[in-house]
Amino acid sequence: MYRRKWRVYSKESTENGELVVVEPGLEIPNLPIYSMEQVSKHNNAENGIWIVYKAGVYDVSQFVKIHPGGDNILLGAGNSIEPFWEVYSQHKTQQVFELLESFRIGNLLPEVDIEDYELEIDGLTLKEPIQLTLDQIKTLFPKHSVTSVVQCAGNRRDQLNTIKEVKGISWGVGAIGNAQWTGAKLVDILQYCGVDMNDPSIKHVQFEGLDLDATSTPYGASVPSDMALNPMNEFICAYEMNGEPIPADHGFPIRLIAPGVVGARNVKWLGRIVLSDEESHSHWQRNDYKSFPSNMDSATGDEFARAHSIQQLPIQSAICSPKDGQPIAVQWKHDPQSGTTKPFIELAGYAWSGGGRAVIRVDLTTDNGRTWHMATLEQEPNKPVHHTYSWTLWKIDIPLSVGQLHQGNTLEFACRAFDSSYNAQPKQPDEIWNFRGLLNNSWHRIKVQIA
Amino acid sequence: MYRRKWRVYSKESTENGELVVVEPGLEIPNLPIYSMEQVSKHNNAENGIWIVYKAGVYDVSQFVKIHPGGDNILLGAGNSIEPFWEVYSQHKTQQVFELLESFRIGNLLPEVDIEDYELEIDGLTLKEPIQLTLDQIKTLFPKHSVTSVVQCAGNRRDQLNTIKEVKGISWGVGAIGNAQWTGAKLVDILQYCGVDMNDPSIKHVQFEGLDLDATSTPYGASVPSDMALNPMNEFICAYEMNGEPIPADHGFPIRLIAPGVVGARNVKWLGRIVLSDEESHSHWQRNDYKSFPSNMDSATGDEFARAHSIQQLPIQSAICSPKDGQPIAVQWKHDPQSGTTKPFIELAGYAWSGGGRAVIRVDLTTDNGRTWHMATLEQEPNKPVHHTYSWTLWKIDIPLSVGQLHQGNTLEFACRAFDSSYNAQPKQPDEIWNFRGLLNNSWHRIKVQIA
Repeated sequence: MYRRKWRVYSKESTENGELVVVEPGLEIPNLPIYSMEQVSKHNNAENGIWIVYKAGVYDVSQFVKIHPGGDNILLGAGNSIEPFWEVYSQHKTQQVFELLESFRIGNLLPEVDIEDYELEIDGLTLKEPIQLTLDQIKTLFPKHSVTSVVQCAGNRRDQLNTIKEVKGISWGVGAIGNAQWTGAKLVDILQYCGVDMNDPSIKHVQFEGLDLDATSTPYGASVPSDMALNPMNEFICAYEMNGEPIPADHGFPIRLIAPGVVGARNVKWLGRIVLSDEESHSHWQRNDYKSFPSNMDSATGDEFARAHSIQQLPIQSAICSPKDGQPIAVQWKHDPQSGTTKPFIELAGYAWSGGGRAVIRVDLTTDNGRTWHMATLEQEPNKPVHHTYSWTLWKIDIPLSVGQLHQGNTLEFACRAFDSSYNAQPKQPDEIWNFRGLLNNSWHRIKVQIA
Repeated sequence: MYRRKWRVYSKESTENGELVVVEPGLEIPNLPIYSMEQVSKHNNAENGIWIVYKAGVYDVSQFVKIHPGGDNILLGAGNSIEPFWEVYSQHKTQQVFELLESFRIGNLLPEVDIEDYELEIDGLTLKEPIQLTLDQIKTLFPKHSVTSVVQCAGNRRDQLNTIKEVKGISWGVGAIGNAQWTGAKLVDILQYCGVDMNDPSIKHVQFEGLDLDATSTPYGASVPSDMALNPMNEFICAYEMNGEPIPADHGFPIRLIAPGVVGARNVKWLGRIVLSDEESHSHWQRNDYKSFPSNMDSATGDEFARAHSIQQLPIQSAICSPKDGQPIAVQWKHDPQSGTTKPFIELAGYAWSGGGRAVIRVDLTTDNGRTWHMATLEQEPNKPVHHTYSWTLWKIDIPLSVGQLHQGNTLEFACRAFDSSYNAQPKQPDEIWNFRGLLNNSWHRIKVQIA
């Protein structure tokens, strides 16, 4: 059932605070996911040369020409290089590991054998672990649907990179998605298993993926029990995405959907649930996905231990249309007040907040915040304002003055949103810059030119 | 039982958007509260001349000398002027109303007859209203305590006034308090009364005070049912504050405590609870306690109707010691790293967020955000990070450089906090300025001089 094994590739702090690379080839959350079949097509100069090492997918097209071992590298083209490195063990140095990771483009898709699939529930208040088959999960519990955003904590990281370089993929506004997820409610499953959900010793619910590392440690995450075990928060073990079985790269056969919570805790290929008095020991729970003040370029183990794991995300919004740098054509419409036609430009985008907080307002400005225009919101109906998990799509026609219309003139637009707790977005990204480039929810800005 | 009657004093928008004063003497939330006994002592030149009109308390000490009716005004000194205005009805003009309100210093304390007190529960899913005596509320239900902040939405309004004048009392950092409240859980009371809390038609829980206006409309507020009816949110009908019966000016005999929610919904002198499909029709629910973009100086009825009623408050923090403008003495302490003594200044304050979100970090800066120092936090133990209602007290020793120590040198400090959803405070108050001066949670700044 567990096809691949790997160890966490991470920068762990040593006692004196220096950073040391431990191991390459580890799954990195939010990277693109490629199946072995997709990788196998990249085995020639025309399609590019990709290789696999443990859970890592690498594009070494540019490196093959200067590989010290010459064309031997092509033996692994479109395939795993692990067998070759067992023979040519000179590769197993930190220098090579770092070089390899510099070519990293994605994670390898785990292959789950659906016949053998079981979800295990274990931990506090249970006498022994309980296993449920996929069929049991589908038939024993009421089918529940929730429309929920899954957003990477690194969404809009690109803007932080313009201030000072951060670690991680330089995401634009696209590291977020909204889908209807369907499955069994987590609380229904735990109740069926006999978990005493009122037992105060249960402080965290841990979730493990099916993807194991070399020490048999799975990808892991946890959510505080007061969130995960509250039925109104609609945590589900989802087996459908938008009405279809969940695609392999989205977590087939079961993905935990933790509405309002950062993507990294929405565990794909869910294999095990553990009721616990402590957070997951996963690297991604304890030594990553935490934010620090902007004057810190790294954090020690102690500093990570004291920092809060990202769970509920803060208020976010972005302009999706037009795109930054895109030339735009001005439109005209009749103005009933003046009886004339007036120029405008149409903008559209999304807004969302974590913790179930609905978006209550999206404002657009063309003068860096002196004047605001309120957008029209398209929202999921009939959800309470403190238990809304879908994103809000917004659009607006922003009036322009005739003086702004000359060809080539550059206009800057910015958007910001407020959630049902009236939380605001920071004006500038430097206020919340952090070395891992997480949680950038500063005003989203685009510059466009009149075509 | 209902001692006083009044009508709402408010600025209501007319159809063309102009503002018109309706009526004086109305209760204004968050003003100081004075008993008739306190007022009666201010009936002479030495103690000052106070008068009462409906629910309003006014200090007219300066006005008596220029009163067009001469000394007649002293007939009402330390007392209500209503009987006199019934006779001298020339006072009932908008000009006089506005003049009167300019002397406003507080609200009159309602006097509740404890023998007659009853809490009424009415509305959807109930066949008829149910009344509970104070004794029943104290004995029928388990006693539940919650430590909860009550914060006025106008806390820190003073900083907004420095940008452009706003309406309301110019509060500093003190329009907030933290106390242990004890009483019966709202959900226990409603369950006892037979309310079907799962009925989806119940969308709001309305709360009414015992203080009625001239049209028999009580002070009112409402909270969405998904918040008020969730047992984890610890809404209580409180009869004790810090272990003693609630003082009269804090809402004796019963005050609704809505943890994590703006002060205006924590209704004092609670008289009635109504399960409803709509928000309270109270002026303070529908036409106040809402925020708008900074380029709006007023809002029409339609604009108020579309805006979100303030409920859960956003992340907040403030420096309480030293005070702004205060001369400070530098302290010295041994620095183990260098083996020398180094200068520092000690700062302390509070931080809090609405919706039960715990404070996870408080940062202080002496250079407007380029460098941050993390404060030490004192927090209520054993509360989940998403159901924490007490404030966080913080303190920090901020290191100074020897170059900063010369007498008279001015230092600026700013603080900001993050909550468990990593919500941030805006850097500058102009980002969130609004004409009612609500929800100022921008970085709190003080300037102090080296003594």
